[in-house]
Amino acid sequence: MENITENKTGQVITPSQLLEHWQGHRRSTRKVIAAFPEKELFTHTIGGMRPFSAMVSELLAIAVPGLKEIVGGNTSEFKEDMDFGNSKAKILELWDEATVEIDALWQQIAPERFQEYIKLFGQYEGTVQSSLFYFIDNEIHHRGQGYVYLRSLGVEPPLFYDRD
Amino acid sequence: MENITENKTGQVITPSQLLEHWQGHRRSTRKVIAAFPEKELFTHTIGGMRPFSAMVSELLAIAVPGLKEIVGGNTSEFKEDMDFGNSKAKILELWDEATVEIDALWQQIAPERFQEYIKLFGQYEGTVQSSLFYFIDNEIHHRGQGYVYLRSLGVEPPLFYDRD
Repeated sequence: MENITENKTGQVITPSQLLEHWQGHRRSTRKVIAAFPEKELFTHTIGGMRPFSAMVSELLAIAVPGLKEIVGGNTSEFKEDMDFGNSKAKILELWDEATVEIDALWQQIAPERFQEYIKLFGQYEGTVQSSLFYFIDNEIHHRGQGYVYLRSLGVEPPLFYDRD
Repeated sequence: MENITENKTGQVITPSQLLEHWQGHRRSTRKVIAAFPEKELFTHTIGGMRPFSAMVSELLAIAVPGLKEIVGGNTSEFKEDMDFGNSKAKILELWDEATVEIDALWQQIAPERFQEYIKLFGQYEGTVQSSLFYFIDNEIHHRGQGYVYLRSLGVEPPLFYDRD
């Protein structure tokens, strides 16, 4: 996938680097999910915010459905209330399924499309690249909140820069 | 600064778009700083973490010094313990000074340098682009933590997608 021509033409970040950037963050988020005690993953909150499981549901509702829209051009409604049956294993299973789907869908985004204007979930307008960065940034944002939840539970979170 | 050629050659994100991406996040972080009650900005913590002022000190210690290294190639030690004199106005003043410096330093990064390998602060190795995304992602991460601090203080944080 790495394209030497891209680097020689001064690409800031290549499509394959951006995919790896995202998947690296997703590996880190997976570790944060795994670090939660199962009960608190679904119940622990601070200041009236959502439990971390609900934030993860939002991330799953954005990643693959958003990419499918980018690839297929079809519009769907945004649905973020998933039923995990209060099971951490179920969340991790869905997370891993999304990892494989993201890799496959990414290969269907032609390089010239990153600057194309789109409207996602019937309402969010921007370029393909700005939409993808929104997906990633929103994940980092909520994962950062998950770190505070873990600390408040006395659990040491994964290292921020660990993307393995 | 926008370069039409870059878009036509399939740039995922152009240098000027990446600068605006970062500065948009920095405007959002500025709103989070401003939203804190002054005393709690320097004292409020959860789970043994740092107060938000200390996280902002880290962000300021990374942004301009990191960019100066990228531009000038000189290595400096990482120093993140700033003395704000417990003043929110002082933090916002330093934040705004950094905004201007970032704009000026960015113009000195030649487009082909984003894929160049560097070592920052004498220890962090990566490409220029991966270093810059680390700066941005680390800011989003800590700002997300600031959101939890604000909520736990009963303060409504700015909207995540507000980058104006």
